[in-house]
Amino acid sequence: MRATQFLIATQKETPSDAVVISHKLMLRAGMIRKLASGLYCWLPLGLKVLRKVEAIVRQEMDNAGAQEVLMPVVQPAELWQESGRWEQFGPELTRFNDRHQNGFCLGPTHEEVITDLVRNELKSYKQLPANFYQIQTKFRDEVRPRFGVMRSREFIMKDAYSFHTDQTSLEETYAIMHAAYCAIFNRIGLNFRPVEADTGSIGGSGSHEFHVLAESGEDDIAFSDGSDYAANIEKAEALAPAPSTEAAAAKADLTHTPNTKTIEEVSALLNVPSQKIIKTLFVMGTPDEETGKQGLVALCLRGDHALNEVKAEKLAEIASPLTFASDEQIQNTIGANAGSLGPIELGIPVIADRAAAVAVNFTCGANKNDYHFVNCNWGAQANFSRIEDIRNIVAGDPSPCGKGNITIKRGIEVGHIFQLGDKYSKAMNASILDAQGKDSVMTMGCYGIGVSRVVAAAIEQNNDEAGIIWPDAIAPFNVAIVPINMHKSERVAQVCEELHTKLQAKGFDVLFMDEAKARLGSMLADIELIGIPHRIVIGDRGLDNNEIEYKHRSDKESSALKADALFEELCQKLQA
Amino acid sequence: MRATQFLIATQKETPSDAVVISHKLMLRAGMIRKLASGLYCWLPLGLKVLRKVEAIVRQEMDNAGAQEVLMPVVQPAELWQESGRWEQFGPELTRFNDRHQNGFCLGPTHEEVITDLVRNELKSYKQLPANFYQIQTKFRDEVRPRFGVMRSREFIMKDAYSFHTDQTSLEETYAIMHAAYCAIFNRIGLNFRPVEADTGSIGGSGSHEFHVLAESGEDDIAFSDGSDYAANIEKAEALAPAPSTEAAAAKADLTHTPNTKTIEEVSALLNVPSQKIIKTLFVMGTPDEETGKQGLVALCLRGDHALNEVKAEKLAEIASPLTFASDEQIQNTIGANAGSLGPIELGIPVIADRAAAVAVNFTCGANKNDYHFVNCNWGAQANFSRIEDIRNIVAGDPSPCGKGNITIKRGIEVGHIFQLGDKYSKAMNASILDAQGKDSVMTMGCYGIGVSRVVAAAIEQNNDEAGIIWPDAIAPFNVAIVPINMHKSERVAQVCEELHTKLQAKGFDVLFMDEAKARLGSMLADIELIGIPHRIVIGDRGLDNNEIEYKHRSDKESSALKADALFEELCQKLQA
Repeated sequence: MRATQFLIATQKETPSDAVVISHKLMLRAGMIRKLASGLYCWLPLGLKVLRKVEAIVRQEMDNAGAQEVLMPVVQPAELWQESGRWEQFGPELTRFNDRHQNGFCLGPTHEEVITDLVRNELKSYKQLPANFYQIQTKFRDEVRPRFGVMRSREFIMKDAYSFHTDQTSLEETYAIMHAAYCAIFNRIGLNFRPVEADTGSIGGSGSHEFHVLAESGEDDIAFSDGSDYAANIEKAEALAPAPSTEAAAAKADLTHTPNTKTIEEVSALLNVPSQKIIKTLFVMGTPDEETGKQGLVALCLRGDHALNEVKAEKLAEIASPLTFASDEQIQNTIGANAGSLGPIELGIPVIADRAAAVAVNFTCGANKNDYHFVNCNWGAQANFSRIEDIRNIVAGDPSPCGKGNITIKRGIEVGHIFQLGDKYSKAMNASILDAQGKDSVMTMGCYGIGVSRVVAAAIEQNNDEAGIIWPDAIAPFNVAIVPINMHKSERVAQVCEELHTKLQAKGFDVLFMDEAKARLGSMLADIELIGIPHRIVIGDRGLDNNEIEYKHRSDKESSALKADALFEELCQKLQA
Repeated sequence: MRATQFLIATQKETPSDAVVISHKLMLRAGMIRKLASGLYCWLPLGLKVLRKVEAIVRQEMDNAGAQEVLMPVVQPAELWQESGRWEQFGPELTRFNDRHQNGFCLGPTHEEVITDLVRNELKSYKQLPANFYQIQTKFRDEVRPRFGVMRSREFIMKDAYSFHTDQTSLEETYAIMHAAYCAIFNRIGLNFRPVEADTGSIGGSGSHEFHVLAESGEDDIAFSDGSDYAANIEKAEALAPAPSTEAAAAKADLTHTPNTKTIEEVSALLNVPSQKIIKTLFVMGTPDEETGKQGLVALCLRGDHALNEVKAEKLAEIASPLTFASDEQIQNTIGANAGSLGPIELGIPVIADRAAAVAVNFTCGANKNDYHFVNCNWGAQANFSRIEDIRNIVAGDPSPCGKGNITIKRGIEVGHIFQLGDKYSKAMNASILDAQGKDSVMTMGCYGIGVSRVVAAAIEQNNDEAGIIWPDAIAPFNVAIVPINMHKSERVAQVCEELHTKLQAKGFDVLFMDEAKARLGSMLADIELIGIPHRIVIGDRGLDNNEIEYKHRSDKESSALKADALFEELCQKLQA
């Protein structure tokens, strides 16, 4: 491809509204342009990368035995009412009426449509398992779109849905898709990890996320340093610590603690380490089945631990979605304000985290404004109803797998696979005839990859101060040919033209910087910014000396290729 | 591909709501399924065809020097307000608010978005011409979606937009795109014609449509039998006939014509051929600039001719969009009812069609209910203000190119190219610096192909009573391998497996009917219905006799390939 026939829209300035590096570099390299909040146009350079990711995903889905389909962006409300999600889904779901006042939405995902399709097409257990995927445009009206295509409103997703007679068959396909996802991210060239994940509101029995490891990731991943264990901290179990051997104090001391609202302030005032302070949080309880009234539930954690809302939300006593009680509700129920609360004679359910439950001689709020108890103990002054794992695992904790300790890394979620079970097939009555000739509700799996997000994640993981460093498999161009003074030297022009033609014929994606009068420095800067893996500079001096300057994007210094064997040596580099 | 791993969803019954043959066959062959009115899911078989059409379109766009981009489905209202189309566009444009109450629409086309993108990215005449295309999902809320994917609400379109310093440059790119479109439809294997087209409301100076010729087409195309001339009848000029040599009658006769409302009825009652009757239609005139009041305009045509609304709408006297006067408006202005109207002392502008204007001794309404004049003549009893070409050309008319006569064929519009001019670039102030360093508004072209419609059009043109007959280039599979009693004969199974593997390795799309116990008759019927071009049937008897049954989809009878040279002979057929 000649640069004069291809939109190179690089920018020197860092765009002011871009926060993360991939967003900055995608704008600066001229890969995308913002159309409106969370809506982006893909320029030719960015689209080349996107299409390469798509092609890898498509090949591996085909290899995994999934069949490609294409479902509409616009979906009828009826199906969403059938599954129950028309009401459940928040404002992320864009709803509208057509000209005949029928309800529709823009598909944020396609469980309903595929379930409807499959219940109509598949009749017999002999047709199962079946696995359908699409690579398609999705829309989610994010409240705060950000990070460019990493969290945009319109995006490209590969979503697949599998259908089974039973859980065993689902698990087989799930394993095949897990392997296909690993193959995809390996082929793309990403440093990634499959991690155990919470199934969240989508339900089901098993789930893995695929995370690209990068400092800028929005998720915390817990890794064991003694095994392959990896899990999203939303999911990672925090084991119960061994009981303390410390002797319990005979009595607790009521202590005046004015102007201390936070754990840090209490710790500083009383000179108590935060792990010896118990914090008490109040959330809304499950509504009473008859009256609909909601009481409060208290959650007790060690001062140095953070509540894991995903874990807490699953407890029967607690309303879903998890909602913190307001100051007013706490004041009315407990008679004290946040900052002075503790598990002392609360008269409501009290759930203690496993680590909090083994604390001895701890400090906690006295449920009296500006007072804490010091040297409190469970069963003496304080009480809990039950012990549960409700905290985030932290670095240094023992791994729940039983081997090694936990380290925490940041990850960008680029894929997610679920064992859905019968959540949708049951609600939508998607059944087949089983081997006994009876109607049997199908078991489902679903499998997503954020195709446009993968592009951004690859940049987050592969960049330096000069720009992007593409993995070979998804680089927009494999190699750049840079001529020096092409308008003055017929020889240079001819060597470049020939090389361009021969490399293209061999199937490489070549960018020929054929803008004759462009400055060498700015061409080289553009190539570094765009992140083209291989680059050669061809000028008369190099040709005279039989030394053509070659540089890989990740090399610090350039090296030399022989001018009289340029094509062969370059092919070796490109195929390495 | 093994049939057991691919959704073959053929149906015997003809779906009740399908009218045209492509819609019926796409449903019966299991290519698409209806999700809701005008919304279709593409099943694996249909999507394979769609992707092959896409690939050909993409290659030829790349060859034509167009650069691929990808723009969002969802577009901000602001841009449409800038171009003026937010108000102009009817309810086909789906408008909605996002969660923050900002206005958006689903893109039925992307002139605004690309113009916005280009005005921001391109700064200098040196960057022109530039041509950008995308293959992308569009949505138009058709009042009456019909004919399956031929006129659906959501569809796949290739849309391209070119930008130029001047008309000459536009015309160069327009010619390149015209040639690219011919290459695309030729490669797909369609019988098509580029035809001159009206530019309609989109404006601009030149336009061609690309029509696939088929009886079921919605458009009438006028062809010359003496030249390459072809035009949509919306556009085709009807030449003025030679003046009549018949002597004008001395006086007209007022004749009682009760119960005659139509040309046919008047013709039968008075025994006058319809071409000697003048019909008079009343449409709304252009509103008065000051008062906004609209008078009526009369249009006179020969009784055997039809009004061309596209031509009429362009006349200065006539309001746009063309609106027929109501019975009440006619009664109030003329004092008579439709069926008895004529160009007699009307007191409003009267436009006579070229053919009507040379009529002699004609019959027309007397503007008195139930009366006609016979032997009327222009300048005597009847008068017109002006002569214009306002009728549809008909078969047998002389071609406007000057060579040969006109025949009319039906066509399906699959492509449309426009010289847009500055309609959008002016409204949206899309300018570049010209060679003199001055701001200059860009000139634009736009170029569309209905990618999903091409699939349906190919079927309309290529089918028989058994099903679809795919052109090779877009067939979902090139060849089908049909085993006989594979579950009983290891030899048959082995020959089929080997052939399947070797043909796939050679790059052919193979469907291996590996469902061991399927009935031969139903497999063959499926293959004919699906329209796979090449088919072989492999059984023990054929292997014994060294004769493998081969049939091309368009052959009436099958022929024999040598079993011991099966792969080679089949490859020859496939590459022919």
